[in-house]
Amino acid sequence: MKLHTYFRSSAAYRVRIALNLKGLDYEAVPVHLVRDGGQQLQSAYLNINPSAMVPTLQDERGTLTQSMAIIEYLEETHPDTPLLPPDPLGRARVRELAQMIACDIHPLNNLRVIRYLVDEMGLDDAAKKTWLRHWIIDGFHSMESHLARHPGTGKFSHGDHPTMADCFLVPQVFNAIRFEIDLTPYPNIARIYTNCIHLPAFEKAAPGAQPDAE
Amino acid sequence: MKLHTYFRSSAAYRVRIALNLKGLDYEAVPVHLVRDGGQQLQSAYLNINPSAMVPTLQDERGTLTQSMAIIEYLEETHPDTPLLPPDPLGRARVRELAQMIACDIHPLNNLRVIRYLVDEMGLDDAAKKTWLRHWIIDGFHSMESHLARHPGTGKFSHGDHPTMADCFLVPQVFNAIRFEIDLTPYPNIARIYTNCIHLPAFEKAAPGAQPDAE
Repeated sequence: MKLHTYFRSSAAYRVRIALNLKGLDYEAVPVHLVRDGGQQLQSAYLNINPSAMVPTLQDERGTLTQSMAIIEYLEETHPDTPLLPPDPLGRARVRELAQMIACDIHPLNNLRVIRYLVDEMGLDDAAKKTWLRHWIIDGFHSMESHLARHPGTGKFSHGDHPTMADCFLVPQVFNAIRFEIDLTPYPNIARIYTNCIHLPAFEKAAPGAQPDAE
Repeated sequence: MKLHTYFRSSAAYRVRIALNLKGLDYEAVPVHLVRDGGQQLQSAYLNINPSAMVPTLQDERGTLTQSMAIIEYLEETHPDTPLLPPDPLGRARVRELAQMIACDIHPLNNLRVIRYLVDEMGLDDAAKKTWLRHWIIDGFHSMESHLARHPGTGKFSHGDHPTMADCFLVPQVFNAIRFEIDLTPYPNIARIYTNCIHLPAFEKAAPGAQPDAE
């Protein structure tokens, strides 16, 4: 398996965690989102992924994009070390938590969106930081409410084993820390993050541990 | 089953289509996202969904949010009239297409985001429209490339039966038309939309056919 990845990409980081939790070997193919005007915009990469985003997974069956679709695919093709619980309501909850990040927070803080705000709309550094922080704080507030009141929350987002929800939570918290968000108002998010990051699967997936890290 | 819905919400529209395709009866509970300062922000609704968004689905098992998690749940609990194909690669492709909309287009055009751009950042009507159109055009460009070159594309996004991908495509095209996007550069998207909208499941789910339509 090949994973087209960028060390700092939140979406690639999710898939790296999932691959590691499942103990799957893969070859990391770095795509630098900034260098050379963005390697994701070059025709070699666009032929693989016309969305010009990372990650892209390639295996003997085919080529796949979108982090959540990739993780669901890994779950179906490599069911050992499941990342979804067995019951439909639990599975729905794990997907729900993942999507709170994938649909409500991360898309607003994506590199291409920040570039548009700066280049096309003239946002200065302070306004950019306000934008980034606003959507993380808004999303973490919802997520913390959900985690705090739901009996399914355990050592991890759902129960006492890492799930797909944790594959999404950890990269988002990593970004929040980069943007200097105080995690004190989100004790469950902070606790789950701490429980995850020292596990080998998460350590090996971290941006700083990647071959293309700067 | 109860579906907390708003006629114009793209995410609620997706779930309405899925429920109808599966022939599942439900009670529509309208949540007006504008009236009364936004009914989704009132404590009665926040108790059900702390994210203050629609849709929320309630059945005898529990309460669920996030449109894609809800549709996956319906697929697992009501497998008749499947919305995902049987093969892992096909399933991944359908999820990928759905997520191209759910993660790369729609979050940028959500009501709360537009409100922030207008209220906090002072965008005028023209700049707002430019923003809305930019992300739809960008996303449709990627999606059309994907649909045009993939042999799995059929009468619908994947093959000749509606799938989860079509549940996401139709509401996004509906919005694109509202924002006066010319569909000529996206012949596959336009064709699939036309093939869908006259099916009873899609007609019944349309914003104009809802009890809370204005």
